[in-house]
This record gives sequence, C-alpha cells and structure tokens, in this order.
Amino acid sequence: MTEAPRFLRPVTTPSADVGMAVTFEAPLPLDCGRELAPFTVAYMTYGTLNADKSNAVLICHALTGDQFVASDHPLTGKPGWWITMVGPGKPIDTDRFFVICSNVIGGCMGSTGPAEVDPSDGNPWGLNFPVVTIPDMVRAQKRLVEHLGIDKLLAVVGGSMGGMQALQWAASYPDCVRAVVPIACAARHSAQNIAFHEVGRQAIMADPDWQGGEYLLHNTKPAKGLAVARMAAHITYVSEMALQRKFGRALQNRDAKSFQFTPDFQIESYLHHQGASFVDRFDANSYLYITRAMDYFDLAEEHGGQLSDVFRLNSARFCIVAFTSDWLFPPVENKRIAHALNAVAAQVSFVEIKSDKGHDAFLLDEPEMFATVRGFLNHAAQDLS
Amino acid sequence: MTEAPRFLRPVTTPSADVGMAVTFEAPLPLDCGRELAPFTVAYMTYGTLNADKSNAVLICHALTGDQFVASDHPLTGKPGWWITMVGPGKPIDTDRFFVICSNVIGGCMGSTGPAEVDPSDGNPWGLNFPVVTIPDMVRAQKRLVEHLGIDKLLAVVGGSMGGMQALQWAASYPDCVRAVVPIACAARHSAQNIAFHEVGRQAIMADPDWQGGEYLLHNTKPAKGLAVARMAAHITYVSEMALQRKFGRALQNRDAKSFQFTPDFQIESYLHHQGASFVDRFDANSYLYITRAMDYFDLAEEHGGQLSDVFRLNSARFCIVAFTSDWLFPPVENKRIAHALNAVAAQVSFVEIKSDKGHDAFLLDEPEMFATVRGFLNHAAQDLS
Repeated sequence: MTEAPRFLRPVTTPSADVGMAVTFEAPLPLDCGRELAPFTVAYMTYGTLNADKSNAVLICHALTGDQFVASDHPLTGKPGWWITMVGPGKPIDTDRFFVICSNVIGGCMGSTGPAEVDPSDGNPWGLNFPVVTIPDMVRAQKRLVEHLGIDKLLAVVGGSMGGMQALQWAASYPDCVRAVVPIACAARHSAQNIAFHEVGRQAIMADPDWQGGEYLLHNTKPAKGLAVARMAAHITYVSEMALQRKFGRALQNRDAKSFQFTPDFQIESYLHHQGASFVDRFDANSYLYITRAMDYFDLAEEHGGQLSDVFRLNSARFCIVAFTSDWLFPPVENKRIAHALNAVAAQVSFVEIKSDKGHDAFLLDEPEMFATVRGFLNHAAQDLS
Repeated sequence: MTEAPRFLRPVTTPSADVGMAVTFEAPLPLDCGRELAPFTVAYMTYGTLNADKSNAVLICHALTGDQFVASDHPLTGKPGWWITMVGPGKPIDTDRFFVICSNVIGGCMGSTGPAEVDPSDGNPWGLNFPVVTIPDMVRAQKRLVEHLGIDKLLAVVGGSMGGMQALQWAASYPDCVRAVVPIACAARHSAQNIAFHEVGRQAIMADPDWQGGEYLLHNTKPAKGLAVARMAAHITYVSEMALQRKFGRALQNRDAKSFQFTPDFQIESYLHHQGASFVDRFDANSYLYITRAMDYFDLAEEHGGQLSDVFRLNSARFCIVAFTSDWLFPPVENKRIAHALNAVAAQVSFVEIKSDKGHDAFLLDEPEMFATVRGFLNHAAQDLS
C-alpha cells in the first residue's frame, strides 16, 4: 500500500490539481468479479481529526459531484458544491468535525476511473475499465477511511447517489458508522430513473466523437452527446413547478419568436448552458460508468428484496430526508427506507421537507434541511461524550 | 386550386401510399409571415358524409401520429392509431359520422413538410421549410374541410397535440365547429415540455448524419439522434408507476447483470425498441418542426394571457378530458381550459379519468374515455335533429 498522499494530474484534467490522493497497491475486489490494482482515491478533508478519531464525517457526492464539497473547484473555479452545508459554523461544522469527501472510483477528478491510465497498457482505460457499483465505491472509501486511521465514522452523509452510498455504508460496514444521513435518494433505482440514464448513455454513445469509448486516444470528445445527456438529466433534477416559475414561456433576449431552431425560450438557453458547462468539467465515460452504478443499485437485492433485512442488527442511527417535489427520488422511495428501518426497530428519523425545487433541493438553500442535519449530527456527537 | 384527390408518393416514403391528398394552389398564409404555395394535405376519411353535410368529425393527430387513425399504417402495417375510438360502432361511430383525419403540414406522411420537394429548387425542403404553428396546421385543415364541401364540423377531436388543434379550431373558426373534444392537452406548452422537446431536437441536430438538415440530399439519416429523441420523449408519455409496474428492475433475457453497457434491464430494451421502430417511420426534420409548433403553442398569447377571452362568444360545446397520471399535460392544465370556458359561460364538461397509464392513456383502452366521447358526440349530434 503506497499511502503517502500526493497530488495527481489525471489524464482528463492535465492542468488541475485534484486535492489529496492516495494510491493503494492491494487490490480492490469489485462486484463484477474483477479487481482494481493499484487504485487511487482522490479526496479532500476539512477540519481536524480529534485525538480519539471519533469526529470524522464522510460526505458522499452525487453523480456529477466530486471531492470539492467545501472548496473551490479546480477546473471551474466555482465554490464547493455544498458550502451551504459544510464549513466553519455550518450544519456540518468543520470547526467540530473532520470532514472527508472523496471522488468515487469510476469518477474523473483523480480517483481511478475510465479516463485514467490502465497500467496494463499505458492507455486510458476507456471501456476496458470494469463496470463498478455503489458497493465498489463504498469499498474504496472504506480503504481511504482506514488509511486515515479511522475505525468508526461519526457519520456518513450524502444526497442522491451520495445517499445511496450512505445507505451502502450502513449495509456493508454496520460497525463502522454511528450515524447515516441519506438525503433525496432511494434504496433502488426505479425503471423511470434507469430509462433517463439510458437516454443519456445512448446520446453519448451515438456521438461519433465518442469513438467506441476511445476518444482520449483519438484526441476527440463526445461533447454534443454528453451535453444532450446532461440536458435530459437536468430536467429530472428540477420540478415542473420550479421551471415554470423560473422560466415559464419567457423568451431569451428577444421580443418575438424567431421561427428558427435556435433557442427562443429562456428554458432552452438555460439547458444549453447546463449542457455546455458540464462538458467542460466532466468525462463522458465516467458519466456512463457512474449512471450504470446507480442503475445497478438495489440494496435489498441480496436479501431477496427484503429491505429491512439489510438493516437487521444495525446499531447506527438514521436520518432520512426527502423533498416533496423531488420526482427523481420521490418521498415515497425515501419513506420506504424509513419503513424498512422501523421494521427492524432501528433508530430512524424521517423528515419530508416541503419544497418546490425538485431533486436539486438538497444542493440548495433549504433551511429545514440544514436545521435537520445540524440537529441530528449534534445529537450523534453527544453520544460520544 | 387543384382539388382532385390523388395518391402521393412522398420523398421519405417512396413505396407507400398515403391515402388521399389534395393540393391547393392558393397560398396558405403562415404565422411566420411566409406562405406555402402550392401545398398538399394528405388525409383519410371513414364513413359517409350525409346529405346536409352535418355529420363530419375531424380528428387531429398528435406529434408522431398521422391520417391513419382507423386503418392500417402503410409503412408499418400496424392498425390505425385510434381504432379503439374510431370505427363502426365505436365511440366515434363511422356508421353515423363522416370522419376526416389529415396529416398536419410539417408532417411526413404526404402533407407538405420538410421532407417534401421545395418547388423553388426541386430539392427536399429541409430547413428551408418555414417554421409552422398549430394555427397554421389548423388553417390547412380548414382548407381541406372546405374542399370537402363542409361548412361546419360536428366535432373536432384530438389528444395531446391533437387537442391543441381542437382548441385552435374553436379559437380560429368558432362558427365552423359545433363540438370540441380536447383530450390530454393544454392551452400552452410548459417550460418542462419545451425542455424535453429541446433535448430531442438537440439529439437530432447533434447527429452528423443530420447534415445541417440536408440528409435527404446526402442520402443519410440521423437515425441515432432521432432514436435518442424518441426515447427521451417516450419516457414522458408514460407514468412512473406504469413503468415500474410493467418493467420494474426486471432483466431482459438474462439471469444476472452483464456489467456491460448493453441493455441489461427490460426498460432499456423497451426504450431501444421505441427508438428503433420510430426511426423507420418518421422523418427527423418533421420531428423538429412539429415539436417547435407545440412549443410555440400558447392559445392565450394573442389575448394578453387571458385564456377565457379566446372563447368569448364561442357557441361550441366543449368536452375536456384529462388523465390523473398524465405528467406531460397534467390535469391542472386541462382544468385551466375548463375554467376559462366556464368564465365565459361556455358549454363545457370536464372529465378527469383515473388512470395510471400516463399521457399515452388517450391512445389506450380507457373505457371511461370511450363512454365520455360517445355520450358527448351523441348529445352533440342530437342537437342537429
């Protein structure tokens, strides 16, 4: 195990530092039957680990997130994706907690993924990279947490795919986590969610610049396909109501319809912007792999579909947070998790927050979410003293 | 006006007859300021026009529909798209009513559209075709109805974009229609609907085989882009619940996940099938034009946003039908139409049908819809005697 943190310059982001990174030589066994060796986990930490190493909070990122939860993104220069939640005095208070956030394996911000170099031939992995799963991602995170000398996390927190990872932590390592906060997520991906992901993947793979996944070798980039994928996905992140309120049928920089196929409506320009800016920061193959991991996620699968069996004997306390207008992971799916936990008498709070901002509410200014997470973590931390 | 019905062989469907067609020499003025001359309307009729020409029912098709409402499709060989609704003894009873259904202008089944020949240069129109609107489509239908010698339609019936046309008939020609049946539609396209359409258009235009719209000249076809567009749209036609019930997370012809990017889940195979079969029957540019027409639709726009003003002095009776699980045109949008009609004391029935089949319910076996339409048309026909 090569454990010295180092700065990485991944294939896709040659000019950007990705924070800290650790490369493990011991293989990471994967659900597909293959293994990764060596593999790298890129991560950021915030705050200070206390003497008994009991104040560590792992934050898991969503599909297109990364380790820069509370610091500027090295490529875009934008603030961290959850600075409202994480920082000094914030609900996840870095004055009190040692916060860890790592890029998932399969990702494109320094952790081993399809855009990184396959040591067997020195070329980018591309589609030779193994299909990874949420449990695989969590297995890699566990290695990082061990590397940091932490036996038991105070909490694992995440929204969307981050919430899936939080649940997986409870399932895979029930003795290594005191508190679990899955936000705006589900214990399995629905048919509709798989469908939207497949549309995105098909859009990417339809782009000739994708080159059968070998675009890095050909010095191309399936930018159009990836932008279409992002545009389609983005619609699912916001509520119909929010789109109507924010954009409605308002025209973009014009007084009348153009009778052309250039964007007339603000909603069109907005989507184009979402697509274009995404392409600049994200790897298309990573998008394929991570969406696939989400599609494959079904926590109860190994327990004959009995979700409650996943949590049997689990001593962690759970705080499940859902948003009323989230139609990607609707409250009923979040509630299903709470019910399963109740069925095995686990400690669980369920909070359904009234919001019209859709799935992305978990990334936005939601005071009730902040208060909930703050209170829950305070409570979990009190147990320690 | 060349009024003799003739059989057409459009550019895109060289081997298929498109039913009847009439070509008008007198120009069709368009909302964009341009005009079409000559222009052709391809159509089908069913049943017999009575002596006083009072039993004509115009059926308007949806985005990807056509004139083959109650007879086999010449390209696919499949039964008409609304044979449950239209035919002898059916709710729209061709033993009693003379049913007309025409392909919209901008379409690709024989009516003048982007795949037809531009008379100015002998090439397919492509993007030189003017951007048409729902009112333009209805203006062309009006010419057909006049050509058939009909002053006043007994009814105009349509679902989805067909419902938009039905509403537009009431707005444009209030004295020419006795009864209006807009099903599963809205008086305007929402921001979310525009967004999904723009994703589809971008997918088509991102396909290099689209060739800037001139694929027919280059003997190519943006099949991949059009398939992605159809896949994305198809998700919006069905409810989350129906997808979950029909497919859930079931795998397609395999016992375990493949850990590949080929379709593992039934929902993926189903979407692929939807995409592939659509490409065989539909023109990509028509898809651009017709989605644009829907996006542009906002019935109240010319009345300062006052929808009720559209229907002032309208003597037609209306029957508005909505489906509870339709999230493309949710009941609240259908209700808005009913409220606007109520506000001007128009004769209106509003029926919200409990269904979990989503938007496509209007094309499926929905006994309450059948009974509603049957009863409403019977009633409208009684007024005549």
